[in-house]
Amino acid sequence: MQVSDRLARLRQSMVESDQPPALLVTSLTNVRYLTGFAGSAGMLFVLPDEAVLLTDGRYGTQAAEQLASAGVGARIEVCPAAGQAERGRAVVAGSGVVGLALEADHVSWARQRAFAEKWFPGIELTPSLGLVEGLRRIKDAGELDRLAAAARIADEALSAVRGRLAEGLTEADFGRLLDFEMCVLGATAPSFETIVASGPNAAKPHHRPGSRQIGRSEPIVLDFGALFEGYHSDMTRTVWVDGLGDPVLRQAVDVVLAAQAAGVAAVRPGAACVDVDQACRSLIADAGWAENFVHGTGHGVGLEIHEAPSLSSVSTDTLAVGHVVTVEPGVYLPGIGGVRIEDTVVVTEDGCRPLTSTLKDAP
Amino acid sequence: MQVSDRLARLRQSMVESDQPPALLVTSLTNVRYLTGFAGSAGMLFVLPDEAVLLTDGRYGTQAAEQLASAGVGARIEVCPAAGQAERGRAVVAGSGVVGLALEADHVSWARQRAFAEKWFPGIELTPSLGLVEGLRRIKDAGELDRLAAAARIADEALSAVRGRLAEGLTEADFGRLLDFEMCVLGATAPSFETIVASGPNAAKPHHRPGSRQIGRSEPIVLDFGALFEGYHSDMTRTVWVDGLGDPVLRQAVDVVLAAQAAGVAAVRPGAACVDVDQACRSLIADAGWAENFVHGTGHGVGLEIHEAPSLSSVSTDTLAVGHVVTVEPGVYLPGIGGVRIEDTVVVTEDGCRPLTSTLKDAP
Repeated sequence: MQVSDRLARLRQSMVESDQPPALLVTSLTNVRYLTGFAGSAGMLFVLPDEAVLLTDGRYGTQAAEQLASAGVGARIEVCPAAGQAERGRAVVAGSGVVGLALEADHVSWARQRAFAEKWFPGIELTPSLGLVEGLRRIKDAGELDRLAAAARIADEALSAVRGRLAEGLTEADFGRLLDFEMCVLGATAPSFETIVASGPNAAKPHHRPGSRQIGRSEPIVLDFGALFEGYHSDMTRTVWVDGLGDPVLRQAVDVVLAAQAAGVAAVRPGAACVDVDQACRSLIADAGWAENFVHGTGHGVGLEIHEAPSLSSVSTDTLAVGHVVTVEPGVYLPGIGGVRIEDTVVVTEDGCRPLTSTLKDAP
Repeated sequence: MQVSDRLARLRQSMVESDQPPALLVTSLTNVRYLTGFAGSAGMLFVLPDEAVLLTDGRYGTQAAEQLASAGVGARIEVCPAAGQAERGRAVVAGSGVVGLALEADHVSWARQRAFAEKWFPGIELTPSLGLVEGLRRIKDAGELDRLAAAARIADEALSAVRGRLAEGLTEADFGRLLDFEMCVLGATAPSFETIVASGPNAAKPHHRPGSRQIGRSEPIVLDFGALFEGYHSDMTRTVWVDGLGDPVLRQAVDVVLAAQAAGVAAVRPGAACVDVDQACRSLIADAGWAENFVHGTGHGVGLEIHEAPSLSSVSTDTLAVGHVVTVEPGVYLPGIGGVRIEDTVVVTEDGCRPLTSTLKDAP
């Protein structure tokens, strides 16, 4: 990964978007992206002539190691929380700037008020949106390697435990097996709470695995991923044991398979995300299930499980080479069951290639 | 758990703290506390005559089930994200209120601006702090049962895998075993990323378990907990295999044990949190390690792993019966190692009782 040039790219982006020459990065994910620091507390001042990471005593040693390892030359200031307002004010004053942009999506209203009144009186605070997230959309080679490794772990974990679906385990038991297998294969953790939704539970897109025993001839929606070196994978498969009983659900599988393939086929550089969404949505609507596809088609994946761009009916985003997005249409039939199928794909010069590779049509 | 009376208690608290009669709850944890709804998207309008949960199509079924199960009579409005501004405006307009409090700690500056400009023009928005968190400090019997169960799972999991510390596993391998054992014993997940910090890594309070092989005669800091029915546990033990080699670290163990016992002894109803912190801190300072205890003494635990009250040198909180807090002093010696010992305790009429019960002084 090329972490060390990211601060320069951010400054370039700040100039291009007509922002003040100073930005306070309060999103810990963005701090990590820019510096390599992965602690749970800290903020990064991106100033015209330097960058300063302010953190507390728990993270002094870790911050020094991680910045050195990433080749990032930011100055580190270690200070207890109680003294950080004063320290932060001194950092900004020392830089001579009169205005400071805040990440408006990543600073609470309470914090913004404290910044305005106590931390930085006399400094003009302006809201900025998506500056670092904009950089994060396009993954570099090192990031793509990690995303591919995370996806491979999920593929291999499912392959290893899939046979046990026939054993009459509960959803929670099967989810645990899948999670443990991912960790054994090198995941830091599941990349989100694994979804195992069986039978009628499959009608709930975000069902939490519970004590329901997985049966035969019913849909089993498995939505899961691995976290690997900070990067997430995301995949959904709808599977079953001994054939799928309900003919309506069999039809739903065919429709969602076709919709998902149409969505993936629409992913290419320059494509409007709303068109990818529409490619999925129109096939599902044609089958009479417009109201049963109750969520967007997909989202970017990277240091966060959900990040830019968004693939939905109201998205204003456009795809570009190096974006990594999910394509995950679904049909949900309350009381009956549901189907969702999802791949994560990377946008390439001539379309896209999937990172997730578990077969979709041979459960 | 008595979920159904929490909205009434919140309204009472709003009156007592002189807030507007309407509050928009945007913290999902607070929404869950008040209604039982555990989805990942939604907001709750607490209005004078009703409460309205606004969520999207992924959560319609789940919200209805969870509110019914909790006995909460809030109205549920299901609406895609793109239409929620309009729907939310109608909900507020229908209630006739002219002012709306926002949870200033749980609404981003960007969102507050959107609320002011697009969602609720003409409605006066005021920042509120800690209203629901104030209620959450005091745990009811059902919550204490869940917290005790979460703590018991962590105790039993450590007991089950502890013998394997002598096998020369890596930190990551041992952490995985501990996590899996907690899940087998009934945990939904670890309550945070398990810390396994061995040898010199023990000098880093928030070390992430890595590829270092756990050796003999060195400190091994294990900081972990279980998530059970939404409630967290939190415990730290510093252990070793075959005695602890370094006499300085042996002394640190004695000092931290004494400091932790002094902190627990200071926990009682009416105690200022700053005094509990001082009870730990003064013993560590007496040993010459004031600068090596680089974090606060503890924090509340409940639906979040870190919640009110805070036990630190700058806390303004006071303990009361039913509070559940950690007491976790530590000494960190860069390059050498470290020691942290932590219990979670519940404040009782005459002091406190521990929820975590793994022995501390016989590693």
